[in-house]
Amino acid sequence: MEHSLKNTELLDYYKARGWCGTVGFGDRPALLVVDLAVAWLKGEKVGSDLTAVVAQVRRLLAAARQASIPIFFSTMAYEPDLSDAGGVIDKKLRHLDVFIKDTPVVELLPELERRPGEIFFIKQRPSCFFGTNLLSQLIGKKVDTLIVTGCSTSGCIRATCESSIDNNFHTIVPMEAVGDRCPSAHEANLFDINARYADVLPTDDVISYLNGIASAKAATA
Amino acid sequence: MEHSLKNTELLDYYKARGWCGTVGFGDRPALLVVDLAVAWLKGEKVGSDLTAVVAQVRRLLAAARQASIPIFFSTMAYEPDLSDAGGVIDKKLRHLDVFIKDTPVVELLPELERRPGEIFFIKQRPSCFFGTNLLSQLIGKKVDTLIVTGCSTSGCIRATCESSIDNNFHTIVPMEAVGDRCPSAHEANLFDINARYADVLPTDDVISYLNGIASAKAATA
Amino acid sequence: MEHSLKNTELLDYYKARGWCGTVGFGDRPALLVVDLAVAWLKGEKVGSDLTAVVAQVRRLLAAARQASIPIFFSTMAYEPDLSDAGGVIDKKLRHLDVFIKDTPVVELLPELERRPGEIFFIKQRPSCFFGTNLLSQLIGKKVDTLIVTGCSTSGCIRATCESSIDNNFHTIVPMEAVGDRCPSAHEANLFDINARYADVLPTDDVISYLNGIASAKAATA
Amino acid sequence: MEHSLKNTELLDYYKARGWCGTVGFGDRPALLVVDLAVAWLKGEKVGSDLTAVVAQVRRLLAAARQASIPIFFSTMAYEPDLSDAGGVIDKKLRHLDVFIKDTPVVELLPELERRPGEIFFIKQRPSCFFGTNLLSQLIGKKVDTLIVTGCSTSGCIRATCESSIDNNFHTIVPMEAVGDRCPSAHEANLFDINARYADVLPTDDVISYLNGIASAKAATA
Repeated sequence: MEHSLKNTELLDYYKARGWCGTVGFGDRPALLVVDLAVAWLKGEKVGSDLTAVVAQVRRLLAAARQASIPIFFSTMAYEPDLSDAGGVIDKKLRHLDVFIKDTPVVELLPELERRPGEIFFIKQRPSCFFGTNLLSQLIGKKVDTLIVTGCSTSGCIRATCESSIDNNFHTIVPMEAVGDRCPSAHEANLFDINARYADVLPTDDVISYLNGIASAKAATA
Repeated sequence: MEHSLKNTELLDYYKARGWCGTVGFGDRPALLVVDLAVAWLKGEKVGSDLTAVVAQVRRLLAAARQASIPIFFSTMAYEPDLSDAGGVIDKKLRHLDVFIKDTPVVELLPELERRPGEIFFIKQRPSCFFGTNLLSQLIGKKVDTLIVTGCSTSGCIRATCESSIDNNFHTIVPMEAVGDRCPSAHEANLFDINARYADVLPTDDVISYLNGIASAKAATA
Repeated sequence: MEHSLKNTELLDYYKARGWCGTVGFGDRPALLVVDLAVAWLKGEKVGSDLTAVVAQVRRLLAAARQASIPIFFSTMAYEPDLSDAGGVIDKKLRHLDVFIKDTPVVELLPELERRPGEIFFIKQRPSCFFGTNLLSQLIGKKVDTLIVTGCSTSGCIRATCESSIDNNFHTIVPMEAVGDRCPSAHEANLFDINARYADVLPTDDVISYLNGIASAKAATA
Repeated sequence: MEHSLKNTELLDYYKARGWCGTVGFGDRPALLVVDLAVAWLKGEKVGSDLTAVVAQVRRLLAAARQASIPIFFSTMAYEPDLSDAGGVIDKKLRHLDVFIKDTPVVELLPELERRPGEIFFIKQRPSCFFGTNLLSQLIGKKVDTLIVTGCSTSGCIRATCESSIDNNFHTIVPMEAVGDRCPSAHEANLFDINARYADVLPTDDVISYLNGIASAKAATA
């Protein structure tokens, strides 16, 4: 049986048992772009074609900038000798030596056109919350809703969504704005994310929500 | 394409890109039994037949007790009004109202025969590390290896394995000792766990390792 | 030189170097009552006379209930054999064996008159945030301001204030509503808390703020 | 009454109530040097003369290198616009704008002579554990004992010791190897650290311990 959101029988099975509820949008969103760095798109070892995902993220970035909400970009980076990985996780993920600090492959994709005030941070684990100050920044900026985009669905996206709802942020995944090099991993994890960690929605719905935020701010300005 | 450990083509694809490395065993293991509470086995809403899993966990418990290693059991429990869930995660997981503190369904399965000194703790999120003192207890007890068993593969097992390797514990899943009500979720997540978060091994191999620990302790006693 | 808020020379020295700024109140407060459990007031080993502190906390509770804001109470509690302390911290704090789960001394003071919906939780470290779900509950309840009261100024109050501002909550200490068995510890730590972690204010000012919240809610109701 | 380790009456009062226990050394230490960066020594706003502290840290570094144990150095650094501080803590600590990433003042003191494999990391809060990967690195490197040195006693040293023992590391402060610009803050906090969070010992005792580790390693090599 296919483990996918397209499998309505499976979806019904989960819904009947209490999973797949709707969290809904809150009032103060932030946009998080996970690991759209050079290595994940063009790297020899771990890269894959995420052109369509990047295009959707660019649409979301435009709406988020219009709505003047906080925007965060993550990347992954370690010391050249991986001494800061710690000696265990780097045995499971043998490609971490691709992600060396201050090398071009860990830089953001230039087409995301990061602007002043938009935060770019290094993480060293799948979840953007682990070993970073993301959580305290979201609280300081009074965020209640986290829109999670980027890659990979089966790794950093799922892990970040889990941390986000663990912390009781309204967590939203615009489904065309996340991707994975492996189609079966993408499908299976998008199902689980929707069942457990986030509302998985059409990107257009998320953009409508952001446009609503922008309009409301303009009306009260 | 099936997202499963049985899919050797998929496994080769991942290995070639650096995933699925071997973490190996450390020297000071602990055994963690996740959520083998009454509700997950016999609950009307969320229960499923995990008889075979429980049998394997009992074998591991016997070996762990022989080796005198720390043993932890988790359960999930909330206030009757779910006020301590927080108002967001409980909208996604609408079955949390099954897990009320001090009710019989959140108790451990009696057949696990928990003994004095074995720790039973409440968690409120998929990962046994979130909002608990598990991590500090593992450090205080000088543990370097965490053996993760119980349910469900696609929820609390995966989430706990991720936290465990994030923190650089050697993380081990005895494959017959974890289960999930949904077969496709079990398969897909066991693949991802092995790719990213833990060594997924035959239960017999883990028992041999524990027997080795017991023998070494006996030899130096 | 006395390390105290009464020492204006010391205060000026700190202010000139950038400490002791004003965080101010946010819009969505919660009230946290730290460890006003029986043991800390009446326990043979660790108890001290905190009657005046309890009286101030009762005033704050009344204002907080009027303003319908979230209210949290912590206590400290361990297994009878301290197995869940972990083996290190219990060597430094040799009185932890006073705080055993489900014994009368770890219960809340009855004069606090806890009501339904007000959350009572166990912590095992000085900070109310360590190993608990407090943070996720504050986020889920959209709190941006934490009012910290109870005991002891030099231990759990200071530690909790530090965690709170680390996470970017507006952190407020009503100065007559926190206490410590040791006067010199109280004075020295209140100075440091004000310098680094929280706005230390007269309790009356905090009650005025809460009354303002209550009025604003009544006006829009 | 002076809040200081020199006050034996106060010490007796605390000991009689269960504080000030001895944690002792474990078997696998790491040395942590907190914030011995240029700004804290030579900065116009926050600098102070820590020459004697640096000399003691250099002695400890020599012993730690001889014993081949993990060595960590922290510094504090933010974006030029402090956007990553979060908007609340930067109101309390108005000097954070001194600590800008990639400027000379956040660099390590050159006399510490950091070597390859010794880890230099950025933190943004008093505790070296908050928002960093220090904890996971200590676990990955099998550390059970953390020796905490540097500055300032009343801020980052105390906060780091608290996190360390919260996590059940044997926590040790060589007393001449920590310092603070303010003598009364140094005294008061060293008392509290010894009462609650760490064994405060003569630096010579810590060096003897490290020499013992070095000898034991040489004997088994």
